[in-house]
Amino acid sequence: MSDATLSELTALAIKFRDERDWKQFHNPKDMALSLVLESAELLELMQWREGDALQSHLAANRSALQDELADVMFWVLAMANDFGVDLGDAFKQKLLKNAEKYPIDKAKGVSTKYTNL
Amino acid sequence: MSDATLSELTALAIKFRDERDWKQFHNPKDMALSLVLESAELLELMQWREGDALQSHLAANRSALQDELADVMFWVLAMANDFGVDLGDAFKQKLLKNAEKYPIDKAKGVSTKYTNL
Amino acid sequence: MSDATLSELTALAIKFRDERDWKQFHNPKDMALSLVLESAELLELMQWREGDALQSHLAANRSALQDELADVMFWVLAMANDFGVDLGDAFKQKLLKNAEKYPIDKAKGVSTKYTNL
Amino acid sequence: MSDATLSELTALAIKFRDERDWKQFHNPKDMALSLVLESAELLELMQWREGDALQSHLAANRSALQDELADVMFWVLAMANDFGVDLGDAFKQKLLKNAEKYPIDKAKGVSTKYTNL
Repeated sequence: MSDATLSELTALAIKFRDERDWKQFHNPKDMALSLVLESAELLELMQWREGDALQSHLAANRSALQDELADVMFWVLAMANDFGVDLGDAFKQKLLKNAEKYPIDKAKGVSTKYTNL
Repeated sequence: MSDATLSELTALAIKFRDERDWKQFHNPKDMALSLVLESAELLELMQWREGDALQSHLAANRSALQDELADVMFWVLAMANDFGVDLGDAFKQKLLKNAEKYPIDKAKGVSTKYTNL
Repeated sequence: MSDATLSELTALAIKFRDERDWKQFHNPKDMALSLVLESAELLELMQWREGDALQSHLAANRSALQDELADVMFWVLAMANDFGVDLGDAFKQKLLKNAEKYPIDKAKGVSTKYTNL
Repeated sequence: MSDATLSELTALAIKFRDERDWKQFHNPKDMALSLVLESAELLELMQWREGDALQSHLAANRSALQDELADVMFWVLAMANDFGVDLGDAFKQKLLKNAEKYPIDKAKGVSTKYTNL
């Protein structure tokens, strides 16, 4: 996993956008919509396959897998930037919230949603 | 924007998962599915509002906005980890690809998809 | 709007599937996944545009719009069929539930979610 | 499967909407966004489960399953109505297109996307 910082990647994303004068299109709704579309493209790689057949398919489509993860990342970084969210802090705070919703002794080894724990 | 590194946040995500013995549930399809669900929750914050009304709504729901971004980030990091993808490198490589698909002189100021440029 | 019945359209969908021996692939998760993917393709037609520009774009892409609606419909019908759900009855029952969640006197002219009414 | 016609269900959906004066909110983008959100809620019912465990879960959540299918249907019908699309005709025409993209002799028993057939 990468030593890249969120601020470094965010700067690259914003530079890419500014060079193309695209900020004018990046309203919150279309950005979130774009995030969903890219997430769906990642999900499409998983369609109709399971287990070993899926793993083989992902290995054969490794470049697409990396690209789709990167496309999702782009929108997360751009949204965090535009909303002034410190994504690292937000992530750590959310993990703390999740740790309360899913205490280890109750959640260990079960996939039950916290509302049913 | 945060100085947190991807490797630091990934380690936190995997620690959270391992403490709960949840890796057993994290097959590629359900992870990508979860990414889509979290992206959809972020999109839901944008539903039925535009412009200033949307900005006010997001300001009033700032905590939810941060949480949803963090939830999306969790799945991106977990997937990159499990697939052995260096997310920072993947991101930089994809930006280079996008720069070819959207050359500045053609793409500047227009939202046209590259297939129609 | 069409006089076609749900049962007629469902029969066409299932015939199409059976001729290709595709039922073997249609497990619940991949069907719901496919529904999301087709819904996302419909949403993509709305990306980066608003108001008159969006209406013009949809008019220029009318065939794609019809096709995406049809693709979404395919999965709704196939899932209802495979789960043994009477979609017409389910629809009417859900409207009754929604009428309770959104009583006219409270919901009229406001887009507030029922949990906040 | 139901003998309900699309026109009958559409009329119910539009009546529900008009009683609440909600057409003002139903622009194309938010409608498509809502369709994606409802599709995602249906997909969420499939999360973290496979095979028999998933079937049992769906049986235990049959009411939710029916409701989510109905919610998806609502947006398909409302969009078709607002765009002036005859959904029954669109569906039949799309099946014909799909029959060309997936000829029986090539597509039988394989889940390959038409672009790779």
